Amino acid sequence: MRIIGIKELEDIALGAALLGAGGGGDPYIGKLMAIGAIRECGPVTLLDPDEVPDGELIVPIAMMGAPTVLSEKGIGGNEYKQLYDMVSQFYGRKIFAFMPMEAGGVNSMLPFVAAARLGLPLVDVDGMGRAFPELQMVTFTMGGVSATPMALTDEKGNSAIFKTITNKWAEDFARAVTMSCGGSVSVSLYCMDGSVMKKYGVRNIVTRSEMLGRAIREVKLGAGTPEENFLKASEGFKLFRGKITDVLREVRGAFNFGKVVLEGISEYKGKTSYVEFQNENLVAAVDGEILATTPDLICLVDTETFIPVPTDALKYGKRVMIVGLKCYEAWRSPAGLELVGPRYFGCDTDYIPVEIRSKGGEA
Amino acid sequence: MRIIGIKELEDIALGAALLGAGGGGDPYIGKLMAIGAIRECGPVTLLDPDEVPDGELIVPIAMMGAPTVLSEKGIGGNEYKQLYDMVSQFYGRKIFAFMPMEAGGVNSMLPFVAAARLGLPLVDVDGMGRAFPELQMVTFTMGGVSATPMALTDEKGNSAIFKTITNKWAEDFARAVTMSCGGSVSVSLYCMDGSVMKKYGVRNIVTRSEMLGRAIREVKLGAGTPEENFLKASEGFKLFRGKITDVLREVRGAFNFGKVVLEGISEYKGKTSYVEFQNENLVAAVDGEILATTPDLICLVDTETFIPVPTDALKYGKRVMIVGLKCYEAWRSPAGLELVGPRYFGCDTDYIPVEIRSKGGEA
Repeated sequence: MRIIGIKELEDIALGAALLGAGGGGDPYIGKLMAIGAIRECGPVTLLDPDEVPDGELIVPIAMMGAPTVLSEKGIGGNEYKQLYDMVSQFYGRKIFAFMPMEAGGVNSMLPFVAAARLGLPLVDVDGMGRAFPELQMVTFTMGGVSATPMALTDEKGNSAIFKTITNKWAEDFARAVTMSCGGSVSVSLYCMDGSVMKKYGVRNIVTRSEMLGRAIREVKLGAGTPEENFLKASEGFKLFRGKITDVLREVRGAFNFGKVVLEGISEYKGKTSYVEFQNENLVAAVDGEILATTPDLICLVDTETFIPVPTDALKYGKRVMIVGLKCYEAWRSPAGLELVGPRYFGCDTDYIPVEIRSKGGEA
Repeated sequence: MRIIGIKELEDIALGAALLGAGGGGDPYIGKLMAIGAIRECGPVTLLDPDEVPDGELIVPIAMMGAPTVLSEKGIGGNEYKQLYDMVSQFYGRKIFAFMPMEAGGVNSMLPFVAAARLGLPLVDVDGMGRAFPELQMVTFTMGGVSATPMALTDEKGNSAIFKTITNKWAEDFARAVTMSCGGSVSVSLYCMDGSVMKKYGVRNIVTRSEMLGRAIREVKLGAGTPEENFLKASEGFKLFRGKITDVLREVRGAFNFGKVVLEGISEYKGKTSYVEFQNENLVAAVDGEILATTPDLICLVDTETFIPVPTDALKYGKRVMIVGLKCYEAWRSPAGLELVGPRYFGCDTDYIPVEIRSKGGEA
């Protein structure tokens, strides 16, 4: 158990941007909301999963939809209270703590808003260990946990409770309502007992975010070069360094599809690389050879500051390093790859772990 | 209180096709389901609204979506039990009776399926007195009654409960989920006390349907010509008789938009007419002069059998009579016209009652 104040939040947000793997939405707007909530209601208690009793009700908090909409539409302020009331009424139980469902991107921050405003602790756990675009893409789905009953509310006061036969159906229902709400809503799903959270969750991911954020902030203070310091702290595999020469984007359904093309610089001069994304980065290749795929994290970071560059901020001329990070171990199982492997996203390639693939591409 | 068996059902279905005003879905498939349910579980008790105690819970039953989908996708058989359970659990009360929300089209029949299978009576009332395309288009909306909590279920076992700030939001949420379910679902909405049903409902509309159906079936048995008999029984205004020369259709959003053009026959020889529709017929004009608009019912019927012709069955060469029927009185109020008047549907004309408009077009 420890206390998360504004300083810790800054590092968590920065680390969450890296775990966003290009998607998940810039945590910035979420961070502002969390800072506001902590200033108003006090800091948030972060619990280690093992500090949660087995039989207590743990409720994940997330936004669903296009994170870019969030910065225009905002969150009314009453959503988390409404979710709290809906869930506790539906289960007829008190909520013990909130947790993030997605530690990457903006969804790393919103559970802090809920926890601060409702005066509940937050558990240091999530269901992805990164960001993914669809709600069934969580470790809990692999564990056979139902996403529903799922509560959804918008900033106007409309709400829904879904019960579905699969988690993919929950995704479809909730996505449809999210679209009719103008593209962003607040949700609670996979409400679960402490024992389930401990069994299937990605543990201590908030702490890992914070560590990653601190490492980026202090990248110039370590023993090696900034790049060495960054790669060591993130346990990342360097895949490429280059200048963006082309960005292709397409909005299909509720997703951002696209591809960024890069021309090598320094030790990669003469080589070219591309990264394909669907909200999050899916595949990275150098000179036509794939060096990393989902579910491993493919992150583009600024070559000077090592600050993560989300797909919406990609533009011509920007210099970035492409880094691969190992995903949560369970994603590498057959069940995990079925949910979030390259073929689910339409990439015609097998999953091979980044630490093996990236060997082929070392400079 | 009276008993509805298969013979009565046949007439109600035929009359409901007329009240469909071109839309609402052909009651045929619903009738087959209702006959099956009555054969299996026995006939249905139809209650006069005044036989319902004020404080008892009355639950409307309807399908939402494209009625044409219903004939391919069907209804699983468990939906009405699921709606019953969801609603009675949500309210913590027993359901006293079902009622139709929309007496026109296929939604005239499905409440009979629910009533027969669950062993509950049905109330002789609805919220439209005809068919309309959107769920907020009911007399209860004029009375300030909320459509929500609204229960929705599909044939696979997925379900949702909505609570919204307006009935239009309920329409938007439910429509979005309906589309993601493949275009048709079963719903219960505007669950209400007997007192509210009696205050705002369109009374005895099932009986009116049955009377209309019988009149069509017996059109050749009356004192006058079949046409005279039909117009007398339906209290209809004859607007045109013609041969269909063109049908334009367009599917936009979840609706069927279109226009049918007719060339006059017999006493209308030399004149032309068109009818525009959005699911239901919206406007009828002869030689450019509008003779009827929503919310009055514009019905196309076969010139020989007087059987109603829904918009999906319109085709080149078919001979039809266009008839206008007066709508339920409350639709003619400013509040009613705001919900279902011509301007809501994008028709740039004021509402003038069919009995006045049609004077201009008499042959």
